[in-house]
Amino acid sequence: MKVRVMALALAVCLLACGGVARAADSLPSWNDSGPKKSIIAFVEKVTTTGSPDFVPPAERIATFDNDGCLWSEKPFYFQLAFALDRVKALAPQHPEWKDKEPFASLLKGDLKGALAGGEHAVAEIVMASHAGMTTDEFQSVATEWITTAKHPETKRLYKGMVFQPMLELLAYLRANGFKTFIVSGGGIEFMRPWTEATYGIPPEQVVGSSIKTKFELRDGKPVLVRLPEINFIDDKAGKPVGIQMHIGRRPIAAFGNSDGDLQMLQWTTSGPGARFGLIVHHTDGAREWAYDRDSSVGRLDKALVEAQANGWTVVDMKADWKVIYPD
Amino acid sequence: MKVRVMALALAVCLLACGGVARAADSLPSWNDSGPKKSIIAFVEKVTTTGSPDFVPPAERIATFDNDGCLWSEKPFYFQLAFALDRVKALAPQHPEWKDKEPFASLLKGDLKGALAGGEHAVAEIVMASHAGMTTDEFQSVATEWITTAKHPETKRLYKGMVFQPMLELLAYLRANGFKTFIVSGGGIEFMRPWTEATYGIPPEQVVGSSIKTKFELRDGKPVLVRLPEINFIDDKAGKPVGIQMHIGRRPIAAFGNSDGDLQMLQWTTSGPGARFGLIVHHTDGAREWAYDRDSSVGRLDKALVEAQANGWTVVDMKADWKVIYPD
Repeated sequence: MKVRVMALALAVCLLACGGVARAADSLPSWNDSGPKKSIIAFVEKVTTTGSPDFVPPAERIATFDNDGCLWSEKPFYFQLAFALDRVKALAPQHPEWKDKEPFASLLKGDLKGALAGGEHAVAEIVMASHAGMTTDEFQSVATEWITTAKHPETKRLYKGMVFQPMLELLAYLRANGFKTFIVSGGGIEFMRPWTEATYGIPPEQVVGSSIKTKFELRDGKPVLVRLPEINFIDDKAGKPVGIQMHIGRRPIAAFGNSDGDLQMLQWTTSGPGARFGLIVHHTDGAREWAYDRDSSVGRLDKALVEAQANGWTVVDMKADWKVIYPD
Repeated sequence: MKVRVMALALAVCLLACGGVARAADSLPSWNDSGPKKSIIAFVEKVTTTGSPDFVPPAERIATFDNDGCLWSEKPFYFQLAFALDRVKALAPQHPEWKDKEPFASLLKGDLKGALAGGEHAVAEIVMASHAGMTTDEFQSVATEWITTAKHPETKRLYKGMVFQPMLELLAYLRANGFKTFIVSGGGIEFMRPWTEATYGIPPEQVVGSSIKTKFELRDGKPVLVRLPEINFIDDKAGKPVGIQMHIGRRPIAAFGNSDGDLQMLQWTTSGPGARFGLIVHHTDGAREWAYDRDSSVGRLDKALVEAQANGWTVVDMKADWKVIYPD
């Protein structure tokens, strides 16, 4: 009998230790500092049957910003690089661009001059590069770009500039019954062709900004045409709206990095029951970029103040992450 | 050895027979006529590994209209009954409605008079009943109604007027790795509170028409307020647009019952690879309602002609379904 009791005790210990080990090993690129501990404590709390904070799997919704939260965003949002490359590729079909701003400056390599026109100039570039084709055509173009385009400074593929610790976090949450969504100011159709392979997030779990589309029969064949008209801006106060529109229930965890994520974090963490908010603070000028209050791209100011007031977890990239990008 | 071989053969047979039995038993409310055979043939084709028509699970997207496809829609869309009940409940807070159309007629029980104002009158009723509250408040109101409201003719709960054969079909598809979505002209937030319990379809897999919402802080507490302004109409040519917006990929199977579903069926069945389109034809005046070309609610005219031309499956409710509603 003694042997059987000991064997049983050993089995229980192995199971228990195995459980802890699994949790610890799920986030190997995270240092054992505060953020990692907070994440694990939250996940264990909401997934433990009988816990007062238990949340049924169907309600374990987690939303992630993309730019600056799941991948880098410097020197400017990668989707703008896509738009610029696209304008260059389309230039031969648009001889009039040679004399028309913002295209003229852009094609001369003068990005600053091209963007001098402010929001209007950006809108012109976005529409020229994102509209006027079918959804299938745009998907091909975005896929081709993401597969080949490289960042001018790191020389990495843009899609190689995703954050390894966040990939581990996404997988860890899913392994614990969470459904993970992207909720980004970026273009919904720009992200969808590659989020499944890159993040394990399928197209139907991507929320983003969009232009309008129109159903048409072309020679009897149905197509969806992308129109040069804004449909929805999924940023700031638009994020809770986009979440409600696409997901239809409030997340219990939200992850961002800038003031554009403030309202998503407020909306998520003000619901009843256990909630989790996290902000990635870009503090690592050596391995990535260091910026916050004074950055025009990914400005983090008010949300950093609110994080303190609301008990959101703040990741110090330099201190909390062992690596930034995947090998 | 002989015994072991026989036991093995028996086990194999049990497993194999079990498999076949499962497929046949998944649709017990369907007669063994054409539609059931078409459904099973399609599902087996796209789920058989090695089949030239095999579709990976992630791409097994199936979209279902709601009104007239998953539940009844006579004498008028059930959501209109909700709106009318809501107007009556709100009347004490709106003394001005006594002298203002369409409310005055409505409150006198004169539905025909109330709707004489056409689209404008319907819009007034919809906005009065659906806007001006938070999303949480609207969810409570819709939940309360669907839990208690009964159909004046059948005396059943409205949610008891879902089609048993379609419930079985939804479950059968999901058991075969499909992800099932609702794509309805009905209100997205009207459906979401009850689609999971009723159809097994979670809020994030419901696509529908919507009004705009706005994020606000009320006494420091975030809310989403429903505004009296149309955001999106998920009907006819809007259905492929809604599908692309929410799902981001083309379904491989679509299920509808009216001309409002025509473009969804065209969009779905014109993609490459194996595709499936199905129309529920309301032919059973005894057990449900019989209508098609001449009905203002759920008109089925052009889509019935197209079904023939495109090889879509047409369900004859009277002939193909053993029962209509759940027991």
